[in-house]
Amino acid sequence: MIGIELHNLAKKFWKINRSITGEGVRLTLEIIRKYYLLDLIVHSVPSGTKVFDWTVPMEWHVDEAYIIAPDGSKICDFSLNNLHLVGYSIPFCGKIKLDDLKNHLYSLPEQPNAIPYVTSYYKENWGFCITQNQKESLAEGEYEVVIKSKIFSGNLNYGEIILPGKSNKEVFLSTYICHPSMANNEISGPVILTYLAKWLKDLPDKNYTYRIVFVPETIGSITYISKNLKSLKKNVFAGFNISCVGDDRSYSYLPSRDGKTISDEVAKHVLKWIDPNYKKYNWCDRGSDERQYCAPGIDLPIASILRTKYGMYPEYHTSLDNLEEVVTPIGLNGGYLALKKSLEIIEKNKIYKTNILCEPQLSKRALYPSISIKNKNLETRRLLDIISYCDGKHSLLDIAEKIDVPAWDLYEQVDKLIQHDLIYQIK
Amino acid sequence: MIGIELHNLAKKFWKINRSITGEGVRLTLEIIRKYYLLDLIVHSVPSGTKVFDWTVPMEWHVDEAYIIAPDGSKICDFSLNNLHLVGYSIPFCGKIKLDDLKNHLYSLPEQPNAIPYVTSYYKENWGFCITQNQKESLAEGEYEVVIKSKIFSGNLNYGEIILPGKSNKEVFLSTYICHPSMANNEISGPVILTYLAKWLKDLPDKNYTYRIVFVPETIGSITYISKNLKSLKKNVFAGFNISCVGDDRSYSYLPSRDGKTISDEVAKHVLKWIDPNYKKYNWCDRGSDERQYCAPGIDLPIASILRTKYGMYPEYHTSLDNLEEVVTPIGLNGGYLALKKSLEIIEKNKIYKTNILCEPQLSKRALYPSISIKNKNLETRRLLDIISYCDGKHSLLDIAEKIDVPAWDLYEQVDKLIQHDLIYQIK
Amino acid sequence: MIGIELHNLAKKFWKINRSITGEGVRLTLEIIRKYYLLDLIVHSVPSGTKVFDWTVPMEWHVDEAYIIAPDGSKICDFSLNNLHLVGYSIPFCGKIKLDDLKNHLYSLPEQPNAIPYVTSYYKENWGFCITQNQKESLAEGEYEVVIKSKIFSGNLNYGEIILPGKSNKEVFLSTYICHPSMANNEISGPVILTYLAKWLKDLPDKNYTYRIVFVPETIGSITYISKNLKSLKKNVFAGFNISCVGDDRSYSYLPSRDGKTISDEVAKHVLKWIDPNYKKYNWCDRGSDERQYCAPGIDLPIASILRTKYGMYPEYHTSLDNLEEVVTPIGLNGGYLALKKSLEIIEKNKIYKTNILCEPQLSKRALYPSISIKNKNLETRRLLDIISYCDGKHSLLDIAEKIDVPAWDLYEQVDKLIQHDLIYQIK
Repeated sequence: MIGIELHNLAKKFWKINRSITGEGVRLTLEIIRKYYLLDLIVHSVPSGTKVFDWTVPMEWHVDEAYIIAPDGSKICDFSLNNLHLVGYSIPFCGKIKLDDLKNHLYSLPEQPNAIPYVTSYYKENWGFCITQNQKESLAEGEYEVVIKSKIFSGNLNYGEIILPGKSNKEVFLSTYICHPSMANNEISGPVILTYLAKWLKDLPDKNYTYRIVFVPETIGSITYISKNLKSLKKNVFAGFNISCVGDDRSYSYLPSRDGKTISDEVAKHVLKWIDPNYKKYNWCDRGSDERQYCAPGIDLPIASILRTKYGMYPEYHTSLDNLEEVVTPIGLNGGYLALKKSLEIIEKNKIYKTNILCEPQLSKRALYPSISIKNKNLETRRLLDIISYCDGKHSLLDIAEKIDVPAWDLYEQVDKLIQHDLIYQIK
Repeated sequence: MIGIELHNLAKKFWKINRSITGEGVRLTLEIIRKYYLLDLIVHSVPSGTKVFDWTVPMEWHVDEAYIIAPDGSKICDFSLNNLHLVGYSIPFCGKIKLDDLKNHLYSLPEQPNAIPYVTSYYKENWGFCITQNQKESLAEGEYEVVIKSKIFSGNLNYGEIILPGKSNKEVFLSTYICHPSMANNEISGPVILTYLAKWLKDLPDKNYTYRIVFVPETIGSITYISKNLKSLKKNVFAGFNISCVGDDRSYSYLPSRDGKTISDEVAKHVLKWIDPNYKKYNWCDRGSDERQYCAPGIDLPIASILRTKYGMYPEYHTSLDNLEEVVTPIGLNGGYLALKKSLEIIEKNKIYKTNILCEPQLSKRALYPSISIKNKNLETRRLLDIISYCDGKHSLLDIAEKIDVPAWDLYEQVDKLIQHDLIYQIK
Repeated sequence: MIGIELHNLAKKFWKINRSITGEGVRLTLEIIRKYYLLDLIVHSVPSGTKVFDWTVPMEWHVDEAYIIAPDGSKICDFSLNNLHLVGYSIPFCGKIKLDDLKNHLYSLPEQPNAIPYVTSYYKENWGFCITQNQKESLAEGEYEVVIKSKIFSGNLNYGEIILPGKSNKEVFLSTYICHPSMANNEISGPVILTYLAKWLKDLPDKNYTYRIVFVPETIGSITYISKNLKSLKKNVFAGFNISCVGDDRSYSYLPSRDGKTISDEVAKHVLKWIDPNYKKYNWCDRGSDERQYCAPGIDLPIASILRTKYGMYPEYHTSLDNLEEVVTPIGLNGGYLALKKSLEIIEKNKIYKTNILCEPQLSKRALYPSISIKNKNLETRRLLDIISYCDGKHSLLDIAEKIDVPAWDLYEQVDKLIQHDLIYQIK
């Protein structure tokens, strides 16, 4: 089960302090490059660069951050859990009374054991995240706050790899690398996309070109689009945003804005056959980089195949979204296979035509039992069903939907029909 | 609550003896003109005028009508209830035995306390309407019938007011004024249309022109169409026939013949949000002037928003359809608001486009919280939802349907987005 | 009830040993020709003729076939039941042990009293069909097998009759004549098609031309298409494959491959009104000559109206599919009427336009009651409903669907409206 390998890579990503910029992003990309995808290109975009309505932010670096309590104990230590520090906290060192400190403490009363995930990217601020239980136990008195961080003109980074196929038409795959230690709503994405990229790289005779990116969410995808809009719009005909693909509690689908692209059709087909109870969201439930890829004027055909969607599980955006209770080898395995099956369908989703008017005589080709008796020759019936839709109008996916079987159950039979010269691919 | 004002106007209309022609129509129009809409034009079309397949009928006038029973008592007195006399009864004075009289008496055995509403517009006849209870109590003997009516070459009248807007494109509103004392299936229509016209007249910067008519049902609308067919077909893009809008028992929708006009879409949207259990009729349930407005070759986009539809409540077309038990201030208020909301949507149903590629950075415009924490900022999400559909293809109504909210919940936010230069109207 | 006549003809067809070629086919066609359709043309196509991917097979003739058991008794006697001999059995005479014989015996363990129907058209072989009960009772020992059959270069035959109408546009009706003694899945088809053809022949002023064929299944329809492809594709706009129309257990519909042809619309309309619980199959449930007529590149608009479909009743393809328990006069009657009603709709499914703008004044034509009282004049309402859809866009079938009545309930009223010059046919 490939899920175990995926889970091992997830562990490597776990402790890295990712944010929308900084060392954490670069370190994550370097692991992917060095161990899996030597051709991965890591791009740098300087702080201050205008990208559509946005500006690439300053880079953020943290040396250390913690609080010394009145009793001398160290709490909210960033080195122990990078969620403790509010993302993009400005440097601050000083003594402060509990009541004032509390204005800078974030906790979740309804999840008293969870450290929440909080950021302040675009407004100068500092703060710590703490469990509600610990916050309530804090004694009155003076606290010493230490935040040794830097916010400086640096770079935003993202990784990109292009895997060429026979056609210039592209399948676009994107995931994000900007959250610190959270498992489903971060690490599951780059882990699975790394393995998908590795599989695609080794896949011989690819029909399509694959454009694969690892970007900081929102600002990263906006930056990527602003630098590649023309070629994205020209070439991309299918793709997925990959997020929350690591738990084993459900499968979900979130449509592209259009809702009727080939990516949508493939996602619904695959999930229907993997899990008939999969959850269908709609566009208004969106929340990741499909917001940018499908924005008006961008209009890329990007759908999402997820396990349990961001925002829909209690551990989301807290320290509880971990690699033990939430993301599991089985969960990752399922997410990987759902996406792999989808990409396989896109590769094989051709349109065929019969070479023969009326039904062919299968018996002379040993594709039909010579004795006709009251029974059900399902293999023969399936071949004839396929042929009956090889009219130059139905794609392989259309045929699978018509016959009501998984598309992957047709691959072998379609090949057999081609070998017998009964059908041919028209596009 | 405007329902009280509406109910007061209804009382003014109550005792007037309306028919498809005559003083009652003119008196009703004069009340509307004098007290509410000074610009209302009252048109006269002479008896005998050909209007498509029909001929404008003679005018009908009643001085008095009653029956003297054998015991000398006066019954079926038109001056006490104008429903007692069959509409368009020819003059008749004479003595007649009970058995012969009964051939001219109309009653409803299944509603023994109701005086039915009966007319004989296009065939010479006379008759009286009476409760079943009273009819059964009539003694044998000779009855003296007095009908002092006149049928003469006069006019058919209707009222019309055009309220110009920025565009020549017109919204067409029609109601009927031809039934005597009945509340829901008559008076509720002209009452609400009078107030809608008054509101529209005072509405500044109207996008569209409003063509508003008060016509006798069937012959009046046919006459109106025959005189205005070209401009109606050229200009009218939306509209409603207004009937049975005064009781508080239900909301209903009756489609245009086409069923897919903007009037239909708006009516269904408004009613869905006002009353999820509203009743949907189909074209074969029609029965008012939409029969003419939507006839083949006329093809106007006229739908109907009703409270309880004609024919679907027991008091319909009887003396029980009154201003106490059936039509109420609350009922009229609901009917008025449903239509007003529909007209507001038509006014505001524009198509927008974003000024920005990818999502805009709302935080720099103070439209987004600067601290991102696990919560639900519904206002921000709504703004982004709207923007995501401002692609030049979705109208405001389309967007409301996509986001699954009432269109009126979007007005303020659309204005805000325009003010921030994030979207602009394309048409 | 015409069902009795149909059942009598079925009995004439019963004992004839039909196969895809041979005397049985010719004898069946001769009965149809001589007694019902003198203009029927019987075509002959020589063995060896290439028809698309197929070759017309050798002709098969049987003089006698039986087995002598060790105790001297004659079993599996072809002269007693032609199902006993596997179709296209080659000649064989010889003594054989029970164990070897069993390799040539076909039976149905789950239906121990049924003789199955087995053929081996395209591979040389011989065999007998026997009930499971009889097979189990066979004693050890030597059996004498006698099959005096001939396989020789002869002809494939089919019958064809063209009934010309006002238009060259054709309705195509096909049934098959290639199974030996089986009632629903064979005889019901040619019986009903014979009577439909007789009715159509005598129908005056047919709007369309009717092309009616009686063909051996599969090879016969392929042969017919290969000889008539151009004219079929040019002229045929509707039609049905007629099979399994004789039992009284259900009604069923099997779509054309396209699923949206006029044949499909008519079939669904008729069956909905005959039996609201009729069974809807889909294209993947097909199994008769629609496989050829609707094949890619052939694309004829051929749907199927059936009683209980082939493969869906236990007696199918066995000796139990008989004229006593399975096919009945009532069953045939229902199958005949469903198809006749469908053809009537196709004949009458014209598009109309009103002559009048707005509603016509029905009262002046005595089509409307002169006194209007609270009641329901359904006849008048129906006339107005029809007129309201006579807009040059709705066919009679469309109107019936809109008004939600059987199309045949509208024929008389449409005629009345034409007589009153209120509507006219545009095509």
